[in-house]
Amino acid sequence: MRESRPFVSLATDFGGAYTAICAGVVYTIAPGANVLVLSDEITPFGVREGAMLLRQALPYLPVGVHVGIVDPGVGTPRLPVAVETGRGDVLVGPDNGLLVPAAARLGGVVRAHALENPAYRLPGVSTSFHGRDIFSPAAGHIATGLDVAELGPAVEPLPLEVPSPVVRDGELTVPVLYTDRFGSLVLGGEPADLAAAFGPLPHGTPLEVAWTAPAPGSARITFEETFGGVSPGTPLAWIDSSGWLGLAVNQESAAEVLGLAGVETVTFRRPRENLTVGNGPLT
Amino acid sequence: MRESRPFVSLATDFGGAYTAICAGVVYTIAPGANVLVLSDEITPFGVREGAMLLRQALPYLPVGVHVGIVDPGVGTPRLPVAVETGRGDVLVGPDNGLLVPAAARLGGVVRAHALENPAYRLPGVSTSFHGRDIFSPAAGHIATGLDVAELGPAVEPLPLEVPSPVVRDGELTVPVLYTDRFGSLVLGGEPADLAAAFGPLPHGTPLEVAWTAPAPGSARITFEETFGGVSPGTPLAWIDSSGWLGLAVNQESAAEVLGLAGVETVTFRRPRENLTVGNGPLT
Amino acid sequence: MRESRPFVSLATDFGGAYTAICAGVVYTIAPGANVLVLSDEITPFGVREGAMLLRQALPYLPVGVHVGIVDPGVGTPRLPVAVETGRGDVLVGPDNGLLVPAAARLGGVVRAHALENPAYRLPGVSTSFHGRDIFSPAAGHIATGLDVAELGPAVEPLPLEVPSPVVRDGELTVPVLYTDRFGSLVLGGEPADLAAAFGPLPHGTPLEVAWTAPAPGSARITFEETFGGVSPGTPLAWIDSSGWLGLAVNQESAAEVLGLAGVETVTFRRPRENLTVGNGPLT
Repeated sequence: MRESRPFVSLATDFGGAYTAICAGVVYTIAPGANVLVLSDEITPFGVREGAMLLRQALPYLPVGVHVGIVDPGVGTPRLPVAVETGRGDVLVGPDNGLLVPAAARLGGVVRAHALENPAYRLPGVSTSFHGRDIFSPAAGHIATGLDVAELGPAVEPLPLEVPSPVVRDGELTVPVLYTDRFGSLVLGGEPADLAAAFGPLPHGTPLEVAWTAPAPGSARITFEETFGGVSPGTPLAWIDSSGWLGLAVNQESAAEVLGLAGVETVTFRRPRENLTVGNGPLT
Repeated sequence: MRESRPFVSLATDFGGAYTAICAGVVYTIAPGANVLVLSDEITPFGVREGAMLLRQALPYLPVGVHVGIVDPGVGTPRLPVAVETGRGDVLVGPDNGLLVPAAARLGGVVRAHALENPAYRLPGVSTSFHGRDIFSPAAGHIATGLDVAELGPAVEPLPLEVPSPVVRDGELTVPVLYTDRFGSLVLGGEPADLAAAFGPLPHGTPLEVAWTAPAPGSARITFEETFGGVSPGTPLAWIDSSGWLGLAVNQESAAEVLGLAGVETVTFRRPRENLTVGNGPLT
Repeated sequence: MRESRPFVSLATDFGGAYTAICAGVVYTIAPGANVLVLSDEITPFGVREGAMLLRQALPYLPVGVHVGIVDPGVGTPRLPVAVETGRGDVLVGPDNGLLVPAAARLGGVVRAHALENPAYRLPGVSTSFHGRDIFSPAAGHIATGLDVAELGPAVEPLPLEVPSPVVRDGELTVPVLYTDRFGSLVLGGEPADLAAAFGPLPHGTPLEVAWTAPAPGSARITFEETFGGVSPGTPLAWIDSSGWLGLAVNQESAAEVLGLAGVETVTFRRPRENLTVGNGPLT
């Protein structure tokens, strides 16, 4: 087995065919590469969701060139960048914060360069498909050994804007990062936040979770190690495989069962005895 | 051309990004492999649908390592297994019957071993993402040449539970296995079942098909060799490309046109002259 | 890096698993190939949409074997063909016009042969899955070096039927080719058609666009170089990355915002002062 093939991944909000065109551009420049579509179905313009996906996924992919494109600013003057990480990867995409959380997980930003050198773009760059015309050609050339400093001037990547969890004594408020395919909510909180709010939290501990907008609601849940800790149809909180706090219903969609569509923030508390069970405002 | 690259396929109910993470783990361990996503869109928790897909697809894929993951029991004590087939493949997934019909098509089960050896798991196995932490690392190591006996103790795979077709004289009752992307129903019956119920059945023979739940209905159809045997919008029964009996509407969705949502069992009969045509209870 | 791996792409209306089975057949015959799924989500039976996708995408993919399958005639006597292009590609698919616009972009049709030789089909061709049984085996064999003349007799590919744009003085009527994933309409007109109707058209020029079926409607827009030329939620016309005229709404779905579902033809005109703004019949 040859171990020397460069690795390129692609994650976009383009859908399948446009992402495959990007893969085709990479193969044209770097025919010896392994090219993997990490995702072509990030929610359109969902920079935060895309950033969380890259942060979660890239540590499990080979060291390589990882293209991430969620780019509401395409056609405006925002910079395209290549970000080299401590692990040895190069992340390629728009400079809107998308790549930065993943870079932090991969050993941090070593250096970053703008993609300005026309030698590493397709001829005739379009105004709308920088994935094909700028990002993929850069990725292909980096995969064949190009030093990122050849791409353009050094830059400092912009950070991603994400609300922080709010910890009070016995209460934890966290943002909803995104809803996954199974209807489970991935929340912007980690085990350390739970510990700061509640102290030690053994599996099986009852909690309540409440939200106020777009319509008030709440649910009684338990904190579990795994979906299997509750019976099918029962809600739970847990720590997902990437270390995020999650809100789920075993074998069903939490978003549907609990009525969580459009909810952007939830608060966990110790349950009170007189709490209304199920959906409805807290009294 | 080099002919020696190991081949790994992945079929899951995870959606695209989680399945691609599994592919990334395989590439990390076996960078020389060809990795193909067979499906990332099996209906969540649809063990039977996944089993039928693997049984249908794997005979057309190269001999290799085939990962199948539809796993309602993730996080519970069900075993992860590797199943070696007579053709020389190794099927990797949960021991819930998912892999067994495909193994039967690939020369039968030669031996099976539980995935217990921590040397062939990722460090820090999560409770929810065994695809990434257990199944994909095992697949990667097998692709690089690991003998399956190194993974853990020998086991006997559990069978898949599927209802059998019921044959009466002039009547065949079959389960709905799944509805495909075009809205055609794939049914748990084969040509031999048709012959047992009806004797020789030339193409063009009229039949009626009826169902009683969730709401009663029926349709007059013809048994055809191909969709092209009837005009667009007309229903038909046929034998699909994997040898299953199917119920379809030429160039339309049978599920929609005939009102088959939620139907789990259908019965084929010779048409009677006084039968109500179209949907409606049989008298 | 080895530069000699043959390249095979697949574009179908089958959905993921059936397309992956085709990829598996290619890998079985040509294990050294790079196989890329260009699309598995063309609208079922959407020959025109598929043809536009291939025409747009293939110039950006490596020279290779490109399988395109949108085949309402599967199971009828229409021919399967392989079309060699001036660039050196071979396009494989049904002879229904699907492949012809792409071939024109790739240097034109050099020669075409029907896929008749049973040596290059799977044994036991099914009536419904020619992608697996005829097209993919042909692609695999061509990728390993088979001359297309070995496949069957020379044929003349049938053209694709697409309505032409209608240019009047100050007015351009164009067909809707398809609606993309973002809800933007891709229209059958190009910059030369705009110039013929309107003369020079600087970015920022106001236009109106109107349609009469399935319900009459119109909108005031501007002609822009890029989405970023208007604020979020504002409609625009533009030239997309493949050179087609498009109708879009910045960061939203034009199909939803403007009510364009089912619209097959639109007309662009210079705006009149007394025009009703927004949806509604033109007076």
